[in-house]
Amino acid sequence: MKALQNLFDRIVQRVNINLRELDFDVQPYVQNLLSFEQLTKFYGFYGITPHHPLDFRFRRSNLAGSYFLGKCSTTNSILYKSDIRGDELKKEGDVYNFQNFQITLEADERIRIEDSFLFKTLVHCFSHDPETLEEFFITNTIALHDANIHGAPIDGSFLGPFATVDLTTMNDCIIGAYSYIQAGEVGHRKIEPGTIWVRSPDQFNFFYRHPEEELRRYIHFEAGQLPQGILIDFVEERKEDWQRLYEPVNLETIAVPESSSLDRFALIKPNTKIGDNVLISERAYLENAHMGKGANAQEHCYIINSRLEGNNVTAHGGKIIEADLAPNVFVGFNSFLRGRPSSRLSIGKECVIMPHTIIDSDQPIEIAAGSLVWGFNTSQADLETNSLPLEKLSKVKDGLSLGGMTFEGNGGAFVSGFRDRINHILEANGAFFDGLANSGHAQKNQNISFNTIQPYPDGEREGLYPTIIIRP
Amino acid sequence: MKALQNLFDRIVQRVNINLRELDFDVQPYVQNLLSFEQLTKFYGFYGITPHHPLDFRFRRSNLAGSYFLGKCSTTNSILYKSDIRGDELKKEGDVYNFQNFQITLEADERIRIEDSFLFKTLVHCFSHDPETLEEFFITNTIALHDANIHGAPIDGSFLGPFATVDLTTMNDCIIGAYSYIQAGEVGHRKIEPGTIWVRSPDQFNFFYRHPEEELRRYIHFEAGQLPQGILIDFVEERKEDWQRLYEPVNLETIAVPESSSLDRFALIKPNTKIGDNVLISERAYLENAHMGKGANAQEHCYIINSRLEGNNVTAHGGKIIEADLAPNVFVGFNSFLRGRPSSRLSIGKECVIMPHTIIDSDQPIEIAAGSLVWGFNTSQADLETNSLPLEKLSKVKDGLSLGGMTFEGNGGAFVSGFRDRINHILEANGAFFDGLANSGHAQKNQNISFNTIQPYPDGEREGLYPTIIIRP
Repeated sequence: MKALQNLFDRIVQRVNINLRELDFDVQPYVQNLLSFEQLTKFYGFYGITPHHPLDFRFRRSNLAGSYFLGKCSTTNSILYKSDIRGDELKKEGDVYNFQNFQITLEADERIRIEDSFLFKTLVHCFSHDPETLEEFFITNTIALHDANIHGAPIDGSFLGPFATVDLTTMNDCIIGAYSYIQAGEVGHRKIEPGTIWVRSPDQFNFFYRHPEEELRRYIHFEAGQLPQGILIDFVEERKEDWQRLYEPVNLETIAVPESSSLDRFALIKPNTKIGDNVLISERAYLENAHMGKGANAQEHCYIINSRLEGNNVTAHGGKIIEADLAPNVFVGFNSFLRGRPSSRLSIGKECVIMPHTIIDSDQPIEIAAGSLVWGFNTSQADLETNSLPLEKLSKVKDGLSLGGMTFEGNGGAFVSGFRDRINHILEANGAFFDGLANSGHAQKNQNISFNTIQPYPDGEREGLYPTIIIRP
Repeated sequence: MKALQNLFDRIVQRVNINLRELDFDVQPYVQNLLSFEQLTKFYGFYGITPHHPLDFRFRRSNLAGSYFLGKCSTTNSILYKSDIRGDELKKEGDVYNFQNFQITLEADERIRIEDSFLFKTLVHCFSHDPETLEEFFITNTIALHDANIHGAPIDGSFLGPFATVDLTTMNDCIIGAYSYIQAGEVGHRKIEPGTIWVRSPDQFNFFYRHPEEELRRYIHFEAGQLPQGILIDFVEERKEDWQRLYEPVNLETIAVPESSSLDRFALIKPNTKIGDNVLISERAYLENAHMGKGANAQEHCYIINSRLEGNNVTAHGGKIIEADLAPNVFVGFNSFLRGRPSSRLSIGKECVIMPHTIIDSDQPIEIAAGSLVWGFNTSQADLETNSLPLEKLSKVKDGLSLGGMTFEGNGGAFVSGFRDRINHILEANGAFFDGLANSGHAQKNQNISFNTIQPYPDGEREGLYPTIIIRP
């Protein structure tokens, strides 16, 4: 196991070098997180379909539980339970619009992950950095439990648990637990836990920070300790269910319409119903869930005792429990929305729940149709300062403050930007498939070959893989 | 599936070109053998251990059910249920003795299998061809059900079901069903079914042919038909057991001593006992089998209701049913040894059962210790002309005929050659391990990582694989 230990030490050292200006030592944060024993037991896997041209090159990586679906490279990168989704990579000749530039891609976009250490991390690839449209890099980065790197090339950074970097290029940053950053380009910053920051330079700036003490109950991470809190407990309580899934015994079978897809590594518990054009992604967890036409359950989300009427997006890591969602509700990354059996959470049509929103109440909550919702909410009263009609926001010209939220700039641009993106997500996921046209992931992911790969079982290289190259 | 069909057609054409001088068309023999549907459903796999340096390169091959364990290459080669065992490949710097030559290997030996089509075929690699010690090639070859290619580079040939080519280099040959050829170098020959031919140029020549009509009941293969007979039925009757094995549900667990190994893809049915230093290889089938110390059960063998006292070799494809084997009995490739519950077959110590021997009797049979046995036997009486004390044979100087067997040359060289080989097999398989020294496959194969690979599930390339390269 010596080579695996060396690799780990090297990654920690490299990240510390990158973060030296911020005077941050990642060592005490990561030293007890990773069980090398555990790493050697896992198998990794990758999917092959006719729709995603592949070019994988893995070198010495420990790729436990991966799934890539498109061009890829790694070098010495540990990727524990990761999914590096390359199924939306740009192709040679595609034109990318950035401000006034129309940039034609010179080559197929590819992913490169060098000496990084990603721990139960999601990466969804599509570089939005106009300087590196052909390459999605994640070099010398450590990302912890359930962090997301979404369309965001990143280098030399450290992401805490449940942190998300979205449509952002990031260098040498420290992102606190449960922070969501969508900010264009960011370097040499330390972001406090629970920060929700959405910025489009020259257009708008949305800023909110979860109240420190309250957030601690949900997620809390200090040097020398393991992450703790309600979010961690929620995931840990369901750990055993997952083990069943990786023992390749068949689970309860479930009827899936021809226009929908259920990933072989999704977990479906009893009384779940799947409508047309529905996408259930890898490592989504559904229990007594009703998925209406065009709804999707993205990677690492949980939908429990809930009803989604249709065209609902549940983004990566979103958690929906004891809730009823009208059509076209969007639930952003890592949101934690929990009603109770006797006091359900009800969300009206076309609501946008911002990423990293917490709604957790033992009283019934109703959210009016067409609302934007954010922040920390344990009662209907909290929502008064943590939500706003989208209609109202779209008329804001110069900014607005409400509760802990500050908005600067043009509300119309913010709202239409969000609506465009939700529409794009539904389209890409196949929600608008009519039997012939508009196919997306729900249709294309129906029939994936999964190849499993295991590390050296013993010796110097125990826990590492041979170099693996896979080409079309 | 078009690319798979094209590949198949191309292989058939290439073999026909190679066999044009023999005026042989393989097409009617193979056209109905292969279900393309079936091929797309299978997954292949390969083993990784720290003991076998690997360098796999698979290109477009359909590698259903493979397992390689060492350096390898393929190009467009269909390898249905094959195991290309590279765990005895020679290494750079090894010295190979051939006649008066001492040949030093310039590079690690590697395997190359180009446009071949191997169907449920075993290949065990170690080139004995002094002209190509660094490469074990199998180009443009079709090999059918349960054929063996054992230490035998081969090109442009066609092997019928249960045919074996052993320690031989072969070009453009047709080998009939159930024939065993160990003959140095052979080209442009057509070998009739049931031929047992063991030749060492300038030393000896052993020749026997199974009686045609009797052999037909056991294995029979004609153009336009599937192979038929008792051997095929025997395998087919146990087909369902195998399906359980590939559904990765755990079977009955069984105690395996620390010095022994049981392959994850071997099939163990109840009441089997495994002693020390025992090797149970991939796709061995054991039911109510007693495996004494140092016994081995090689790939594709069946041992049922039988007792092997120790240091017994059951070579690839050997079948032992209702039999008792004293210590140090050797059972050669594809032998079919079947007693009955009330009239068992008993084989004395240090017997050598020649490859492709049939003993199938409803009367009890006893074989004296130290016998060489061959040919077709359904009664004790048959053995009078199909066996000989090894002691007696070793004194033969100029040849001998007995029943249908003809022996020319030096009996001592034949007997000592066989004994050396058996000793080498036991040694290589770890039968002589003492807790520290003399480890072999039984000890080294204990902890293999198995990687499974699947073909494209759909589209033009359905049933074929992407190019896969795996390096240390």
